[in-house]
Amino acid sequence: MKDEKVEGSIIPSTDPHISEYPPKHWKTREWLSGFTGSAGTVAITLEKAGLWTDSRYFLQAENQLKDSGIELFKMDLPETPNLFDWLASELATGNTVGIEGSVYAASEALSLIEKFSKKEIKVRTDFAPYSQLWNDRPALPAHPAFILPERFSGKSCREKIKEVTEALKENKADMTILVGLDMIAWLFNIRGNDVTYNPVCLSYAVVSEQETVLFIRPEKLTEETAAYLREQGVRFADYEKIDEYIRKIPAGTRLLITPAKINYGLYAAIPENCVKVETSIHPVDQLKSVKNETEIAGIRNAMKKDGVAMVRFLMNLEKTLASGEKISEMTIAEKLRHYRGEQALFAGESFGTIAGYGPHGAIVHYEATPESNSELFPEGILLVDSGAQYFDGTTDLTRTLALGPVSGEMKKDYTLVLKGHIALATARFPKETIGMQLDILARQFLWQNGTNYLHGTGHGVGFFLNVHEGPQNIRLNYNPATMEPGMVTSNEPGLYRSGKYGIRIENLTLVIPFQTTEFGEFYAFETLTLCPIDLKLIDFSLMTPFEIDWLNNYHQTVYERLSPLLSEDEKDWLNQFVMKIGD
Amino acid sequence: MKDEKVEGSIIPSTDPHISEYPPKHWKTREWLSGFTGSAGTVAITLEKAGLWTDSRYFLQAENQLKDSGIELFKMDLPETPNLFDWLASELATGNTVGIEGSVYAASEALSLIEKFSKKEIKVRTDFAPYSQLWNDRPALPAHPAFILPERFSGKSCREKIKEVTEALKENKADMTILVGLDMIAWLFNIRGNDVTYNPVCLSYAVVSEQETVLFIRPEKLTEETAAYLREQGVRFADYEKIDEYIRKIPAGTRLLITPAKINYGLYAAIPENCVKVETSIHPVDQLKSVKNETEIAGIRNAMKKDGVAMVRFLMNLEKTLASGEKISEMTIAEKLRHYRGEQALFAGESFGTIAGYGPHGAIVHYEATPESNSELFPEGILLVDSGAQYFDGTTDLTRTLALGPVSGEMKKDYTLVLKGHIALATARFPKETIGMQLDILARQFLWQNGTNYLHGTGHGVGFFLNVHEGPQNIRLNYNPATMEPGMVTSNEPGLYRSGKYGIRIENLTLVIPFQTTEFGEFYAFETLTLCPIDLKLIDFSLMTPFEIDWLNNYHQTVYERLSPLLSEDEKDWLNQFVMKIGD
Repeated sequence: MKDEKVEGSIIPSTDPHISEYPPKHWKTREWLSGFTGSAGTVAITLEKAGLWTDSRYFLQAENQLKDSGIELFKMDLPETPNLFDWLASELATGNTVGIEGSVYAASEALSLIEKFSKKEIKVRTDFAPYSQLWNDRPALPAHPAFILPERFSGKSCREKIKEVTEALKENKADMTILVGLDMIAWLFNIRGNDVTYNPVCLSYAVVSEQETVLFIRPEKLTEETAAYLREQGVRFADYEKIDEYIRKIPAGTRLLITPAKINYGLYAAIPENCVKVETSIHPVDQLKSVKNETEIAGIRNAMKKDGVAMVRFLMNLEKTLASGEKISEMTIAEKLRHYRGEQALFAGESFGTIAGYGPHGAIVHYEATPESNSELFPEGILLVDSGAQYFDGTTDLTRTLALGPVSGEMKKDYTLVLKGHIALATARFPKETIGMQLDILARQFLWQNGTNYLHGTGHGVGFFLNVHEGPQNIRLNYNPATMEPGMVTSNEPGLYRSGKYGIRIENLTLVIPFQTTEFGEFYAFETLTLCPIDLKLIDFSLMTPFEIDWLNNYHQTVYERLSPLLSEDEKDWLNQFVMKIGD
Repeated sequence: MKDEKVEGSIIPSTDPHISEYPPKHWKTREWLSGFTGSAGTVAITLEKAGLWTDSRYFLQAENQLKDSGIELFKMDLPETPNLFDWLASELATGNTVGIEGSVYAASEALSLIEKFSKKEIKVRTDFAPYSQLWNDRPALPAHPAFILPERFSGKSCREKIKEVTEALKENKADMTILVGLDMIAWLFNIRGNDVTYNPVCLSYAVVSEQETVLFIRPEKLTEETAAYLREQGVRFADYEKIDEYIRKIPAGTRLLITPAKINYGLYAAIPENCVKVETSIHPVDQLKSVKNETEIAGIRNAMKKDGVAMVRFLMNLEKTLASGEKISEMTIAEKLRHYRGEQALFAGESFGTIAGYGPHGAIVHYEATPESNSELFPEGILLVDSGAQYFDGTTDLTRTLALGPVSGEMKKDYTLVLKGHIALATARFPKETIGMQLDILARQFLWQNGTNYLHGTGHGVGFFLNVHEGPQNIRLNYNPATMEPGMVTSNEPGLYRSGKYGIRIENLTLVIPFQTTEFGEFYAFETLTLCPIDLKLIDFSLMTPFEIDWLNNYHQTVYERLSPLLSEDEKDWLNQFVMKIGD
């Protein structure tokens, strides 16, 4: 920093593709600080260093930062200064903050530059001295890309490119740059293994009326992949050439830009004589989120396979516990991998299984480690959140299970969460509705009791792609993306009693047309996930007849769709587990 | 326009105070077009002219524009171009559009300038040739201001000024300019008669650490008013001097500005060497919206008076209909004025009574005219929306009444509206919740049936001030204002069957603390309005026990609070009208 005349620096945890999970090559913050959590940002001055992370990582960060000289700043506590204020207060007027612009979303970097400029502090966006300092920096992942056949994707790459160029025309733009790996994977019908859990492939792309260019290292293209893409009208360039390409965009070109979906490095490389047409939602994200009929048919099939795996898992869990055999949180993850691995077209997990027993269930995003791993006993509550990648769909579901006797408080909490889940699952809403409007349906019963959960109620889910995708979500926060027929979104209210237990019930849903009346078009959700809900945790005195009907109908659907794929034993077990209420 | 080298012009319907209801002096659009509706904008070119208005005024505008040469553009129809697109298409590159900047909110004018500049069309903001052309232009209203005593307002002007200067400090600003007449009335504890239904007084104000200046015509200040304000530390300047004052603001002054709450004329007059500190919600609007204890006590009292007037009105309506005496929509408004006029501290209506019988009820904002006036018969549905200004509070309530036999469709619609009203009335929600999140509670049962209403669910209500005030509301649209304890907001879901009938049930609510738990602070609504809800329109088979309990409890409260103020006859009638369900 001294050599470069930089007095402060910020190291975030994302990458040039604005990934939620970056490849190791870009885990600069982890390399620098030793902190391995998925979310955290380091700020450095010539004298001090700090790491900001959220409550799920307080303990882990405290341990990993010991003796590092890096101070831990616990986010969202009233006494914690935010990173910007802290760094601004440590620096003087006229100082310079160095950041690596290419690992910042343009929107983030621009806002940082503006905020520091008000403090008369300069921001340099080319500060990345890591190539000299980081000796054993992991190489870029080099796995080959593979084609997702059209019998799964439902649309040729050529058709998708046409949809994108039509969207460009609608937006009066000539060209767009893609950095999001899932956006590129969708558009080109390619998948890869470059990022854990996300079947994506390191690349950039440019789409214009004139040409579609995929920027990818040649060694990642097998002959077959290259042939398919060439046939679809795609031209190739090396991954590293994207910057040069952008610098040479002809004057007057109108570029469609979503500032949260391009890195600042490429954003800044756009020639000044080009016009930036900004949209808050990128057309590729919008197109990708609305699943086509082939994708929907695939997802329904993936749900059956996932349901069968879950039934086998639940049955095995029950037996194992009854037998007195030892079983732990980590065994849960293994068992789930095993049963899912038996299913056709399985391609891996869609995220690290969260199996939280008792107090661990209250730690949102808990992932058992050998140090934390709890043994399970036939009592209390187990929360299991897991999912898979199949070639015909991505799954993500959470079940909360009574392993034995449970308290009245547990039952009340679980029932209120379930009522919220049902209220959202059965919502009807007009065209143009956004997730923020629907969110209260899932929270209303908790709020009536002075309880709440601080995570979102629902996130978009990709098709054999990232388990978290935009543009839509269902959250407390405002997001202008409307819920459109064909979108797949999770429905996952929860409740977490710190030090006691955690509850979450999660199914994936599909937006479908409901009816058109003199008042306009109305939509509904169809629940896609097929897995029984534990009745042992329900306080039926709190449920309405409508809610009990929903539960019975849901279980009937689960049974009807899964039973042809189950053995007699498994069918009996499932039948027993979802025994019709009121009978 | 030719003399001024202006090829296009836009004439909106607001005024320099960004009023919803401007005094006649500023009804330029009405003078120009002959169209008297409250909402409408005219655009003119050298060859053509058009008026844009919404569906409630289609018929009226068609009649009033006949032979004017002004084309009617029906807003919100798919085939109607919007005003900007139409005007831009009629003009050529290099043309100039003239607007009167002072009757535009700065936010509106700035957006217009930006949009036209993209089309290479200039915008002149000083185009107001009306003084020469408009011969009989009404003078500015000259009614005197009067002081609202602290026994009603609950806080001295000096205390309020202190709150404002503290808010300036928090926002790191030195000064703010007030143009909103209700904001000024609140701050200075003054009221007036310059605008129909809104007890405000024509004025501007400036608040800074150094001084508080009220810009008002001297003839509006009685000795008593002037003495009170002087004692509170207020300095006076003439109404017309605001522009000069702003032009002389010292260099470097940091001005707190809410662009939607200052007119563009004054905004543009701010010296360039000043700093604009922008906020989306003006601190005075925020402070005004949170009612103090004296105001809340006053409102509770106003609600009793309004409830007594409503009981007398409802009883009289029932009798009149039974007697066969003639009664019409216009008589309804007169009767309501009569019964409210008998109440202490009555100062007028808070808006023009909406009494819509049968199909007229489906016209949102319908106000009967001698031409439209319907006679009432002992059958079908009557919608009555009305309210009053009392020195101790502003009221606004809607009841939908069965005048005789009603259909099953009417009952179902009414019951679904009522269920929504109850769901919102009984909502509990955490601190930081905004109206958009709550809105679905009132609409959910309608949406389940493919029905909806296109107006907002709730608006803020002033204290002996404008019946519509910000910053909070409950709508389908995003608005960042959070619901805070002390805010008064309407709860008014409805349903309108075009050509048949309209239904709306409206009470005012107060945000109150509910409970504080490990999950944070939670709030609730208290229903303030005291007026029985017509049970004859309810289909009880659609109501839950919880909803029936709410209704019984509400009616018990209405009876308990009103009965000490009612005669024996009136008490008997009320008792009969709200007869406990299930007994």
